[in-house]
Amino acid sequence: MQSIDVYRSEFVSYMESKFVLQEPVNLYEPINYILRLGGKRLRPVLALLTTEIFDGNYKEALDAALAIEVFHNFSLVHDDIMDAAPVRRGQATVHEKWDTNTGILSGDAMLICAYQLFENYEPTTFRNLAKLFSKTALQVCEGQQYDVDFESREDVTLPEYLKMIEFKTAVPVAAAMKMGGIVANTSSENQELIYNFGLNLGIAFQLQDDYLDVFGDPKTFGKQVGGDIIENKKTILFIKAIESGSATYKKELLDLYSIQPKEPADKIEAVKAIFMESGAAASTQNAIESFTQKAFLILNELDISEEKKGVLRLFGENLMKRTV
Amino acid sequence: MQSIDVYRSEFVSYMESKFVLQEPVNLYEPINYILRLGGKRLRPVLALLTTEIFDGNYKEALDAALAIEVFHNFSLVHDDIMDAAPVRRGQATVHEKWDTNTGILSGDAMLICAYQLFENYEPTTFRNLAKLFSKTALQVCEGQQYDVDFESREDVTLPEYLKMIEFKTAVPVAAAMKMGGIVANTSSENQELIYNFGLNLGIAFQLQDDYLDVFGDPKTFGKQVGGDIIENKKTILFIKAIESGSATYKKELLDLYSIQPKEPADKIEAVKAIFMESGAAASTQNAIESFTQKAFLILNELDISEEKKGVLRLFGENLMKRTV
Repeated sequence: MQSIDVYRSEFVSYMESKFVLQEPVNLYEPINYILRLGGKRLRPVLALLTTEIFDGNYKEALDAALAIEVFHNFSLVHDDIMDAAPVRRGQATVHEKWDTNTGILSGDAMLICAYQLFENYEPTTFRNLAKLFSKTALQVCEGQQYDVDFESREDVTLPEYLKMIEFKTAVPVAAAMKMGGIVANTSSENQELIYNFGLNLGIAFQLQDDYLDVFGDPKTFGKQVGGDIIENKKTILFIKAIESGSATYKKELLDLYSIQPKEPADKIEAVKAIFMESGAAASTQNAIESFTQKAFLILNELDISEEKKGVLRLFGENLMKRTV
Repeated sequence: MQSIDVYRSEFVSYMESKFVLQEPVNLYEPINYILRLGGKRLRPVLALLTTEIFDGNYKEALDAALAIEVFHNFSLVHDDIMDAAPVRRGQATVHEKWDTNTGILSGDAMLICAYQLFENYEPTTFRNLAKLFSKTALQVCEGQQYDVDFESREDVTLPEYLKMIEFKTAVPVAAAMKMGGIVANTSSENQELIYNFGLNLGIAFQLQDDYLDVFGDPKTFGKQVGGDIIENKKTILFIKAIESGSATYKKELLDLYSIQPKEPADKIEAVKAIFMESGAAASTQNAIESFTQKAFLILNELDISEEKKGVLRLFGENLMKRTV
């Protein structure tokens, strides 16, 4: 097994060797730009790590890992257009640096390039990877659509919200890990178990992201604390507070979520107080813990050595401690 | 062999059975809408016809044919956003009926759905179809990018223009026919030959489209005659006139292509006169004839019966007579 840093740097070198500038420049330059903007490369690293967990050679998983990363960046390019977001990782988004049409077309090309990365695998592996990839990609689109739909609804239930973040965030993590299992040619039982490990860990990670967006340490969280409240985002905290049963909290929260003050500090404090007092904060922490434990319980069922279970557990713990 | 009308109606029934409304409705409704807007279904019909040309069962090619048609409609949805086009086949475009974000996301989902349609084929066929599909789809994106790039250039050469229409228009026709060959499991020689037949016929068809857009009969052409001139589109006629060597024609044409009069009749007549007098019209007709003949010559090399060569020739002739 290699360290996470080795997987990451090997992956980035491989990616940079595969994506070099070609004609037509206006199509491929934005692709190279977004792929080189950086990021934790979490999904590809997981694909490489999982390949070795199942006794495969991580170098054989580089193409599958790259497909997942190219897809992730494709969805960032198109999502940034939909959200009219000007900045991504501290730099101009593709549609901002070029234009919307360039963002649409370069994104389309990225989705196709992702599929092409499976072509070096032999036919059965190719089909297994491409099938998983298509299912995953379509669920991400569906998750994005649910996210858009939820913006104009006030009655989003917790199961609906969980399904949305599962599709939009957890499924690609789960798929990256299962791809490692496919490349390593492990049993279908192991493939399903590692998928469910990634799925539950991914859900826990996103719920924790919701929590830290409100209660995180501004020094370590990475994003602007309070950002979701400023944007009136209906995260698990909002849904739990609405569902807490108190008509007062519900009315106050809906009122606060109907305004967008220029100086948001007071609004953030008021919403935070409701999240605390309604019990939404505590029950969100319970949910995070519950999905994390569900993930770790799955490790017991995997047919791999105890040492390798330890590697996965440590990775999961570090991920939830945000130290990966 | 079935008649073109039978292939078409079988294809449309199959498509309508495969694309039914599902959740999230806001993602899938636009997909069903664009797929049911009609059209000649030329590419899928060619995939079915070619399967039977190579002694396969056309029913086995329905999924591949549908993938090509779904991809074609995906590109229409995204191109219509890029062109800000309000109308498609006499109806509102997807981004006009819904909004741009819906057009982007539904288009993305269509591209993924197209790949999923190959999943019922056994692994080797799956890989051959998906590889051809990816190569084709990426060339269509590149062709679209060249088309955009050419808008702001006055020095586009004929080889550059031919490559653009090859990628954007001819390659999907060629791929549809090769897919029929792959499903029918014909020899790789036959697959390459039928691809090149489709490629040359597709180029001839697009060049003829350029010609008819200026010189066609308004009653039968289908689109507005003079449309390309109104939009200052640099088609083969424009390039041939510029390349004709006359400085006078070149200056006149560039002047005419720098204006967009509200009443375009005079401009259309003036441009038409230059296309005639510069020899551009005649040499375009030569190019159409040359690509058509190149396609028909390939038929001689195909390892199929004379009767089946006759079917392909008749289809090609009817296509060029616009009676398909």
